[in-house]
Amino acid sequence: MTDRKIPRDRADDYADEIIQARQAFAREHTGSALDHVASYSLDPGTLPGNVEGFLGVAQVPIGLAGPLLVNGEHAQGEFFVPLATTEGTLVASYSRGMKLCRDAGGITTTVIGDRMQRAPVFSFDDARQARAFGEWLSEHFDDVAAAAGTTTSSGRLVDIQQFPVSKLLYTRFNYTTGDAAGQNMTGKATFAACAWIKQNYPGEVHFLLEGQFATDKKTSIVNMLHTRGKRVVAEITLPAALVEEQMHVSTDKLYAARMRGQLGSIMSVTNNNGNHSANGITAMFIATGQDVANVAESSALYGFSELLPNGDFYASVTLPSLIVATYGGGTGLATQRECLELLGCYGAGNVYKLAEIIAATVLAGELSLGSAVVAEEWVQAHDDLGRNRP
Amino acid sequence: MTDRKIPRDRADDYADEIIQARQAFAREHTGSALDHVASYSLDPGTLPGNVEGFLGVAQVPIGLAGPLLVNGEHAQGEFFVPLATTEGTLVASYSRGMKLCRDAGGITTTVIGDRMQRAPVFSFDDARQARAFGEWLSEHFDDVAAAAGTTTSSGRLVDIQQFPVSKLLYTRFNYTTGDAAGQNMTGKATFAACAWIKQNYPGEVHFLLEGQFATDKKTSIVNMLHTRGKRVVAEITLPAALVEEQMHVSTDKLYAARMRGQLGSIMSVTNNNGNHSANGITAMFIATGQDVANVAESSALYGFSELLPNGDFYASVTLPSLIVATYGGGTGLATQRECLELLGCYGAGNVYKLAEIIAATVLAGELSLGSAVVAEEWVQAHDDLGRNRP
Amino acid sequence: MTDRKIPRDRADDYADEIIQARQAFAREHTGSALDHVASYSLDPGTLPGNVEGFLGVAQVPIGLAGPLLVNGEHAQGEFFVPLATTEGTLVASYSRGMKLCRDAGGITTTVIGDRMQRAPVFSFDDARQARAFGEWLSEHFDDVAAAAGTTTSSGRLVDIQQFPVSKLLYTRFNYTTGDAAGQNMTGKATFAACAWIKQNYPGEVHFLLEGQFATDKKTSIVNMLHTRGKRVVAEITLPAALVEEQMHVSTDKLYAARMRGQLGSIMSVTNNNGNHSANGITAMFIATGQDVANVAESSALYGFSELLPNGDFYASVTLPSLIVATYGGGTGLATQRECLELLGCYGAGNVYKLAEIIAATVLAGELSLGSAVVAEEWVQAHDDLGRNRP
Amino acid sequence: MTDRKIPRDRADDYADEIIQARQAFAREHTGSALDHVASYSLDPGTLPGNVEGFLGVAQVPIGLAGPLLVNGEHAQGEFFVPLATTEGTLVASYSRGMKLCRDAGGITTTVIGDRMQRAPVFSFDDARQARAFGEWLSEHFDDVAAAAGTTTSSGRLVDIQQFPVSKLLYTRFNYTTGDAAGQNMTGKATFAACAWIKQNYPGEVHFLLEGQFATDKKTSIVNMLHTRGKRVVAEITLPAALVEEQMHVSTDKLYAARMRGQLGSIMSVTNNNGNHSANGITAMFIATGQDVANVAESSALYGFSELLPNGDFYASVTLPSLIVATYGGGTGLATQRECLELLGCYGAGNVYKLAEIIAATVLAGELSLGSAVVAEEWVQAHDDLGRNRP
Repeated sequence: MTDRKIPRDRADDYADEIIQARQAFAREHTGSALDHVASYSLDPGTLPGNVEGFLGVAQVPIGLAGPLLVNGEHAQGEFFVPLATTEGTLVASYSRGMKLCRDAGGITTTVIGDRMQRAPVFSFDDARQARAFGEWLSEHFDDVAAAAGTTTSSGRLVDIQQFPVSKLLYTRFNYTTGDAAGQNMTGKATFAACAWIKQNYPGEVHFLLEGQFATDKKTSIVNMLHTRGKRVVAEITLPAALVEEQMHVSTDKLYAARMRGQLGSIMSVTNNNGNHSANGITAMFIATGQDVANVAESSALYGFSELLPNGDFYASVTLPSLIVATYGGGTGLATQRECLELLGCYGAGNVYKLAEIIAATVLAGELSLGSAVVAEEWVQAHDDLGRNRP
Repeated sequence: MTDRKIPRDRADDYADEIIQARQAFAREHTGSALDHVASYSLDPGTLPGNVEGFLGVAQVPIGLAGPLLVNGEHAQGEFFVPLATTEGTLVASYSRGMKLCRDAGGITTTVIGDRMQRAPVFSFDDARQARAFGEWLSEHFDDVAAAAGTTTSSGRLVDIQQFPVSKLLYTRFNYTTGDAAGQNMTGKATFAACAWIKQNYPGEVHFLLEGQFATDKKTSIVNMLHTRGKRVVAEITLPAALVEEQMHVSTDKLYAARMRGQLGSIMSVTNNNGNHSANGITAMFIATGQDVANVAESSALYGFSELLPNGDFYASVTLPSLIVATYGGGTGLATQRECLELLGCYGAGNVYKLAEIIAATVLAGELSLGSAVVAEEWVQAHDDLGRNRP
Repeated sequence: MTDRKIPRDRADDYADEIIQARQAFAREHTGSALDHVASYSLDPGTLPGNVEGFLGVAQVPIGLAGPLLVNGEHAQGEFFVPLATTEGTLVASYSRGMKLCRDAGGITTTVIGDRMQRAPVFSFDDARQARAFGEWLSEHFDDVAAAAGTTTSSGRLVDIQQFPVSKLLYTRFNYTTGDAAGQNMTGKATFAACAWIKQNYPGEVHFLLEGQFATDKKTSIVNMLHTRGKRVVAEITLPAALVEEQMHVSTDKLYAARMRGQLGSIMSVTNNNGNHSANGITAMFIATGQDVANVAESSALYGFSELLPNGDFYASVTLPSLIVATYGGGTGLATQRECLELLGCYGAGNVYKLAEIIAATVLAGELSLGSAVVAEEWVQAHDDLGRNRP
Repeated sequence: MTDRKIPRDRADDYADEIIQARQAFAREHTGSALDHVASYSLDPGTLPGNVEGFLGVAQVPIGLAGPLLVNGEHAQGEFFVPLATTEGTLVASYSRGMKLCRDAGGITTTVIGDRMQRAPVFSFDDARQARAFGEWLSEHFDDVAAAAGTTTSSGRLVDIQQFPVSKLLYTRFNYTTGDAAGQNMTGKATFAACAWIKQNYPGEVHFLLEGQFATDKKTSIVNMLHTRGKRVVAEITLPAALVEEQMHVSTDKLYAARMRGQLGSIMSVTNNNGNHSANGITAMFIATGQDVANVAESSALYGFSELLPNGDFYASVTLPSLIVATYGGGTGLATQRECLELLGCYGAGNVYKLAEIIAATVLAGELSLGSAVVAEEWVQAHDDLGRNRP
């Protein structure tokens, strides 16, 4: 153990001098040149509140996909989607799906839910005390909501769900959060609410601000059932001939494959009975300054498809816990803001629009990869081996 | 629907001209300036195989955390960890945990599993045919492995797990993949294996290359049970006095809080009974050129802690499906390679080292946030409200 | 394929003649003597509505356990518990736990939830129609509840939960059902409600009466989170010395074992982080005329324990989906009614009392088996092998 | 708290005198007449090993269903199935499904897996010790199996699965168990194996005989994936016209409904994407002397269906954790044995036959209820309300 310590300037930790001192320190202790990390156009003065110990940047290549035709309530028309990724074929695959969907008339998108939460757990001496508290909490919801409201102008406590067990009461404080993702906002508001509760409850009550029932940065069934962030649907009906022509599969084979995938999803117990939503969501999250760690939960997906009597194929994805923002967090940084502007989504009033575009992108990607998996087998089944061996 | 089409040059799509044409196209159609997106030091000539339709870069700020003291089998000594993020306090919080762990003697890390898979599903006319095929497949494992081996020099088919249901046989083809993440490698190898099977099985057999049992880019119970990528443990025993001094919580309160969190994790049914592994993993993945979409599965976590009789606190995290590479994919790009070099992890022979550093980082972050949640309640419980209201 | 057909009398299928005809038929076609099956004291005339094609009875031996000391809100005092089982040691093990709990002052029980449901799924052309229907349904709750109410005097529709996905709306119609289990009652009421909806909704709506969201006879996370039947807690604090004396384990070893079991429960993904609730519940269900198939869901359990600073052991079980009745179903049959009377639980007004007794029985059984598993290792670790080899 | 104690005779607790003493005691303390409970034809002398504190019997009415036409490998031909239940319509509903399946040519059944387990967890000081032990355990499998084998002649240790996490190694010791269910047998054998391990492992090792990874009496994903008891498939292809004629639904409507149910199953996270397997299994378990508490796990079900191009309907159920015996436990008791004889399944060599009959019964019941749910909606949609209101 050495006494090596990363240089830090308590007065201004984002000035060029201290940044360069850190770069020099890192070079010295690791031998890494950091030439590219130290090459950036962003203004470090914009970074307080976004990163500590700033050293430089990761340059993540962005590919442009589209046009994506969206028939949303908030996103309408064609969009060009910036995808920040280092995975080959990702942009190409999404583009292929976007073309298919555009030729089928576009993707319909609908935001069907919106709530962000903190989930304090309250502890008591026994189950009856916990039950009594639960009743009191319901009766005093307005007061609790008012206490939460003192900390935020854009968030609003909508309801409190209760999940009693043993001598504990797990809760979910559900908020709307405007155009921000709202995780910090709801944390502060819920802390204020809990403080009010502790002062006013005519009995002893202990709480933890997070009882693992909002599962921040973690996917969970409770979040998938009850929404975290936005709940968005993207849906489309694809003509059989179009699928055959562009994807080289018949819709009935596509559907049969999907049914096998469904059973596989049930058996493997995944949070996502689709294909690869994480690919598109991650690439858009990096590009547009979202909190990328939320991919853990935002990539959860319920897929539902139907083979129509005429052979056409209805496909949909529902993202039950998509956490997005067009304001706050990393959205205002240099490239991130530009990418939001590319989508016409920067700033207040655009969060549903962004959610719709992401959902549409995900659906395009599902159809592209889903078709490719099936086509591969079809090729393999009908041609001789050598030609198709990768 | 317009006929707007993103410019593309089939001869060389990574030349400056076509990149600028795309930028001009995007500016024209969206109004976004793209000044920062177009500012990069990386050489676009390095990008084929990593991105299509290259437009520019996302500049994601990197904060430097550490030193992180690791007592691994592959990572030994102090490391400075690059965290690419736009979320304020993330770097500070991880640094705080790293300091605690360093003062406690460092984090012990161990790679306890390593396997990457593709998961074809085979279909038959009835369950007996599926059962017969399963027996044949076991008997012909060596031949199947040889067929898979024709496509790769660094990957090796280790075993094939069988999960029969109805008239189907779901499988997992498990490989070791060297220093690459291996998702493409195992896809190609498994396709070759399936082709061999189809040619040689004395009966009819249909397959889909992916039956949702490898759950690529999706978290699943089967992957958590049976490992996807690396299975890594990071563990430490923290002296009670040290925790009290640095974290301002007693270890018994920390443990009691953890127990409430455990029950919350069970009830919410999450893939992660810890706090926020996704934060550290995502930030390291972006910095070091990993496939960031894998955060969906790589952030899965089993936490296990003990309050020792003397009050000390044993803490551990097990990452059961950590997908990492030090070679291939995005690891060789400009800033990504520099960040791997920062950790002494670039290139062949380093993948276990990287896995250990990531696991240690995750544990440091768990302890930091876990303590903060408890301390907050403690403060709240003992002080007057106003001072602590956020 | 033969034309053998089980004899049936459409006029009176419960008369001795037709019963004997069936017995003769079965003897002839199978060779089974059926002497014991044909020996019963119950009056077949009581069976319409309980069984069709009556052939005779299964004689399931009942063991008597107790006294069980319950400090409930509905069950107070000592109870002797009839356990119908063929599994050796079951009665003895529960009795042992009951003695421990009685010596510790008895088990505190609390009913903390009560709701039975049907879960129709409604289908539409797209997600927006589904969302509009959801809003209409909320606005017309009173009318829907009134329609449901026309079919039952003892059931009451309390609320309707909505779970939108794709173009579908999954719902849970939650009822209180008095002293009946209520599955049929809620089925009829929900059908009436859906009929009213179909007539009155100003748009097209299709429904299935059960969309797999009430998961009747199937355990599920949604039922564990949101209660099906009664949600009951049984809890107790056991003095360390008493545990040591009667169970031959120290409470800290008991607790350490429990922690390992918790992690095992998380990894195996079970609906029950306890030991064997199904044993006691099944035995009581058979004895008291419950619908035994409900064991599939009723045996779900959340366990929560604490090792107190003084070494005492707090233990609790929460049964989140305990489906019981003291009226209707099989509760009025000959031996079943007698067993309910043994507990003072027959007839209206007793369902919470029965739920409390069952929960207390479960807790007693958990402590007994949980201690035995730990003691076994202790014995094994300290003695030579031969003596303890089973 | 009183000093009331249930009478017990340590010399012979199954003699008439002590039984009558208990009955008198129970009558006196509870007022229950117990006339019917005390009426039984079984010989209490057969009960040691099956129940303690014998008081009398539960008389559970048995209905006879069938003929059930099974095209199994072990069960072939027509069977009359005894269903012990108090739930009206259960026998009628299963009979209806059996008729449909018989008219369609019978149900094909296949046992595709067979393993019973105990799941000890081994504890160490750190993860590396746990890993080293895991390697040692693999290398010494033959010795461990031999040690396990000393305790049983009918059971055989087949393999040991390892699930490492933190400093722990969770295992599953998988056995074949002949015609017994094998839970006790595997407990004893695994204890002997662990004793051998503890004596022979050149290092310190602690174990708990059950680490919640066999999830005895509890359903779990690990058991569904890896089989507990028998893994059995029942499958059939139903002609469209036959379904329409007997079930009054078209197969495409049946299939569409099933797809909605699948998504509901995924969202609710149930262990059973079918309808009501627990009904048939429970009724057969009670009748034939199985350990009825195993319904908790045995009712787990994977359903898979296909709508064939010609409109016919392929349906299957896979029971992944069906725990049954034709020998030992309650199978030899009076009525229980008679019911096994009714099926030609009493005694050694019949356990697969019984498993097949149960799986076929389950499938018949699934088709019956599944059709009824759909037909109801169909009726409701096309007729006026009043006539169909229940």
